[in-house]
Amino acid sequence: MQYALELVGTYFFAISGALAIQNKDQDLFGVGFMGFITAIGGGSLRDILIGAYPLVWIENVNFLYAIFAGLITTFLFFSHMAKLRKTLFLFDTLGIAFFTILGVEKCLNLGFRPEVAAIMGMFSAVMGGVIRDTLTNEIPILFRKEVYASACLAGAVVYLTLDYFGLDRDTNLLGSIALIIIIRLVAVKFKLNLPILK
Amino acid sequence: MQYALELVGTYFFAISGALAIQNKDQDLFGVGFMGFITAIGGGSLRDILIGAYPLVWIENVNFLYAIFAGLITTFLFFSHMAKLRKTLFLFDTLGIAFFTILGVEKCLNLGFRPEVAAIMGMFSAVMGGVIRDTLTNEIPILFRKEVYASACLAGAVVYLTLDYFGLDRDTNLLGSIALIIIIRLVAVKFKLNLPILK
Amino acid sequence: MQYALELVGTYFFAISGALAIQNKDQDLFGVGFMGFITAIGGGSLRDILIGAYPLVWIENVNFLYAIFAGLITTFLFFSHMAKLRKTLFLFDTLGIAFFTILGVEKCLNLGFRPEVAAIMGMFSAVMGGVIRDTLTNEIPILFRKEVYASACLAGAVVYLTLDYFGLDRDTNLLGSIALIIIIRLVAVKFKLNLPILK
Repeated sequence: MQYALELVGTYFFAISGALAIQNKDQDLFGVGFMGFITAIGGGSLRDILIGAYPLVWIENVNFLYAIFAGLITTFLFFSHMAKLRKTLFLFDTLGIAFFTILGVEKCLNLGFRPEVAAIMGMFSAVMGGVIRDTLTNEIPILFRKEVYASACLAGAVVYLTLDYFGLDRDTNLLGSIALIIIIRLVAVKFKLNLPILK
Repeated sequence: MQYALELVGTYFFAISGALAIQNKDQDLFGVGFMGFITAIGGGSLRDILIGAYPLVWIENVNFLYAIFAGLITTFLFFSHMAKLRKTLFLFDTLGIAFFTILGVEKCLNLGFRPEVAAIMGMFSAVMGGVIRDTLTNEIPILFRKEVYASACLAGAVVYLTLDYFGLDRDTNLLGSIALIIIIRLVAVKFKLNLPILK
Repeated sequence: MQYALELVGTYFFAISGALAIQNKDQDLFGVGFMGFITAIGGGSLRDILIGAYPLVWIENVNFLYAIFAGLITTFLFFSHMAKLRKTLFLFDTLGIAFFTILGVEKCLNLGFRPEVAAIMGMFSAVMGGVIRDTLTNEIPILFRKEVYASACLAGAVVYLTLDYFGLDRDTNLLGSIALIIIIRLVAVKFKLNLPILK
């Protein structure tokens, strides 16, 4: 079940990664490359930092096929997808929420400290997009979007806190994912931002 | 023989990496640093992703000396080299073709799946340049040049396919390298591009 | 003693990293994220390249707390700190000098060749800032500042040379750190630059 969700999440991550650069006159290969980097970047960076080899998509090529499927979907329905921005926004929000908490759990299971797990959860979710934006010379999403990475970090901290107090895993997982989604939706809806330093 | 070729390839990679930023008012150190990053970047990223430690140039410092030699050559003949663009283009094309297939072979020898080997072969060849371009705030070569990384990927896939069908290694190696070179030369000569998504 | 210095160095690295992006309309989270990346980036890249797991800040979360302390200091005194540029420049210079030589020593202790240790020492000190600048779409510090990374490399080479000739560790450590600081201060004071290639 969780494995199926991870594959589906990877599929959507590849799509939203590829679509994020649509205004750039990229050829097919460039768009595909960027979808690929977005989908694998965050999890790969997390696993390299914590030394968790082999990387998930290198051990299990089904993740590569999920990405290919996402890229082919993008190529086929490219012109239609521009109209689906709201749907894609939802999928992206679901994706970062889900991958944050999975990243946190992976680190806890490997015996890392909760402080490390919180950072790695956030990295899993957002660093793929950060790498993509850096490669295409954009200001990373992290600095543009209202409460994006910080929603992930907040969800991770809440998960870890409730886990510490013994909440059962499934309730905690769903609750924390829901929290990230709600923070993100509320922030976008009401254009909330964190304070700017002056 | 192959080892000698790798050293020579590294030498030329450092030169083409350093020359790629010549219009930027970089000081000597900056140019050298970028030549270094270009030469080690792709292979290092590949080895970090697949967890193949120690990295090639860290275990065998002769690669570092090949890079130093390339950088000194660049410093001494900098003003002349601008006129040698066609020669350097050829060396760069030879280099990416050669390093792609070597990267593929390394992954196969370590027991990785062909899908992974194809991606890692391409990464070996092009990611050094991508990292250099990102650090110097350029749109990476990958997105500017006609059929650059995609030629490497095509060559890698052909190598893996023929290897699967039992073609002997030397023929396959030379044939796949030649294929990458031909695709690249034809694409540049006739200004071929992959389709742009609209 | 050295451990205390490392924590203090990390604290100041986080501050100078966070302040480096103050003209960018970043929100609180973005500034903190960048301070974090600056503080951990160089050492993490070094340890990933040489395969020295677990990474320092992942094994010992006190480094994370030193970074948090630095970020909170930045948030609280942000408007005052802009006036402290000279003090911060001194701390940054102390920091890169110190972390260069510590990085060199770590590599030597792990049995790596001096050529590798020199490069890794420099990477430890400067790559955090390079990653930060790349993520925020700046031309990396490496290419803007007078004799920055090259001072670190020079100090590393001197340390390794004197170590080879048997100078005792403490004298060598202090002397090489002082050398980096002096090179940097002299270069800034007299606006010295390395030659630009033409």
